Amino acid sequence: MARYPIVLLFCLLLPGVLQAAPVAIALHGGAGTLTRDKMTTEQELAYLQILDTAVELGHARLQAGARGAEVVREVIRLMEDSPLFNAGFGAVFTWDGRHELDASIMLGESLRAGAVAGVTRVKNPIEAAYAVMEASPHVLLSGSGADAFAEGQGLDLVDNQYFSTPERTRALERYRATQVESESAKFGTVGVVVLDAEGNLAAGTSTGGMTGKRWGRIGDSPLIGSGTYADNSSCAVSATGHGEFFIRWQVASDICARVKYQKVYLQAAATHVIHQELTQAGGDGGVVAVDPRGNVAMVFNTEGMYRASVNGVGEKVVAIFRDEPATGSGVADDG
Amino acid sequence: MARYPIVLLFCLLLPGVLQAAPVAIALHGGAGTLTRDKMTTEQELAYLQILDTAVELGHARLQAGARGAEVVREVIRLMEDSPLFNAGFGAVFTWDGRHELDASIMLGESLRAGAVAGVTRVKNPIEAAYAVMEASPHVLLSGSGADAFAEGQGLDLVDNQYFSTPERTRALERYRATQVESESAKFGTVGVVVLDAEGNLAAGTSTGGMTGKRWGRIGDSPLIGSGTYADNSSCAVSATGHGEFFIRWQVASDICARVKYQKVYLQAAATHVIHQELTQAGGDGGVVAVDPRGNVAMVFNTEGMYRASVNGVGEKVVAIFRDEPATGSGVADDG
Repeated sequence: MARYPIVLLFCLLLPGVLQAAPVAIALHGGAGTLTRDKMTTEQELAYLQILDTAVELGHARLQAGARGAEVVREVIRLMEDSPLFNAGFGAVFTWDGRHELDASIMLGESLRAGAVAGVTRVKNPIEAAYAVMEASPHVLLSGSGADAFAEGQGLDLVDNQYFSTPERTRALERYRATQVESESAKFGTVGVVVLDAEGNLAAGTSTGGMTGKRWGRIGDSPLIGSGTYADNSSCAVSATGHGEFFIRWQVASDICARVKYQKVYLQAAATHVIHQELTQAGGDGGVVAVDPRGNVAMVFNTEGMYRASVNGVGEKVVAIFRDEPATGSGVADDG
Repeated sequence: MARYPIVLLFCLLLPGVLQAAPVAIALHGGAGTLTRDKMTTEQELAYLQILDTAVELGHARLQAGARGAEVVREVIRLMEDSPLFNAGFGAVFTWDGRHELDASIMLGESLRAGAVAGVTRVKNPIEAAYAVMEASPHVLLSGSGADAFAEGQGLDLVDNQYFSTPERTRALERYRATQVESESAKFGTVGVVVLDAEGNLAAGTSTGGMTGKRWGRIGDSPLIGSGTYADNSSCAVSATGHGEFFIRWQVASDICARVKYQKVYLQAAATHVIHQELTQAGGDGGVVAVDPRGNVAMVFNTEGMYRASVNGVGEKVVAIFRDEPATGSGVADDG
């Protein structure tokens, strides 16, 4: 008789044991004053399509057991190669009419990280960030030195003009004339966070920075703790927005610190940092984040953020505007 | 009769009310394998003397009501101008036989911050960091762009050879021959944290980086959250050591996050991050830190750290080696 409770317990737990480990992914392609009246239906569909393609690719690879770092690289490469985003091909212009690209990657299991700032010849900056992590004793390389390192690692190199598109050329001309950055060019950074089947978190971010940037300006995207952070004991975050605020408020690592030390849920931590801290300071932007249980948070204080996710229970979101439903998808106890 | 307790309470509180607001300062000139047998008495005295001069200058200025940002600038400038430290004059050489200097500054009241990475012509890099904070919309400028910005701001410029000293030339020759960095050249970063009479925290850090660095490597010193952080709601921190670990563990902002979210004392937070997190990861170095009550922490896991402080109750420490007394000076309740 005494065995019945044990058998019952076993039966209750069995489905959980047999269930595959949860995987989750969330990605962004920038945040800003994105409203329906500023986009044609064709543009909207083009963005929704690539966001969907990217999140499906990443989710399928995670389900197949691919490691987090590989999935972050693959999905960001896909987005870098699209002219729709301000990263890789289609990056914005600097004041001098060139392209200076930044990227970073971090692994939550080991806190290993790699980043590049101001590369000008690497076709896929996320690959340069990955190579810094894998093949150098450093975390952050910059400028022509980072290009030289990437070349030594055998990465695909291109002429700087490879990154140029007619749309970004027009944005630079407008910026030079008005000194006011066009909104579409302002926030096009891409980023991906994942929970892989081994339970490890990873995050990556890639950007062309701000149109018309000068003086070797470095934003938050290549900076560990600012634009990118991953720690298995808390969460993985990738940010997009007005980089200076994300550096000063340490947005990525602060969200993780709140999860770790205040024991709040990911969605609550991300919401507080973006809607209280950042908004009060006057900083615009957003984050995508994932925690070790597969909860996903996609939080922004702008009118829209190109975003897509599949959380740990398989719920999928692909969206652009603020009024679209339930973008902070949660698992079980996460509000 | 009922008035006596109130009068008694008033008399007890009066001295505290009349007392000037506490000010505090802590500074470092690098951490590493510093033991007495590796230094001559003359060398030791030279270091103790400049550490003493620097901390006395800063403390006197704070007592006179100078703002935190001014004191951080003045004290770091003094240390940059000394060949004893790896910052400004006397900075280490890159692999290419040049000098690339990094610096950052942050204010705890506003979370305003400025930083430069890889400047080559600015006599006092801390002044360039300050100018970025004051006169640009950015936080971090890099390379020749940062030099050009500093020039536009009218800062003192020098030839790159200005920073060279015979000692650093020998260190580069040894490094090129052996690929092993001399310990003396490894950790000479300088940093200052202060609590000013208005109750505001500030932090600054300046360095020449690692001897023989390549590929435009950027360490933790110019990175907000990694080597430098200041937030009136928690603490101000400046770090020195193996920069890559300080980036991955977000040492400066993590100490502040623990103070803020875990409600632990500064000394406890700094001790945990350096002696647990960093030591377990294999990272060498240390921090100086101050909180809004004038508590000072100077914590390192190396054999020594050039350091000096005056805490909020006027207790002064000037020290180099690990076995020297009471370097984590506290006020009242801080262990």
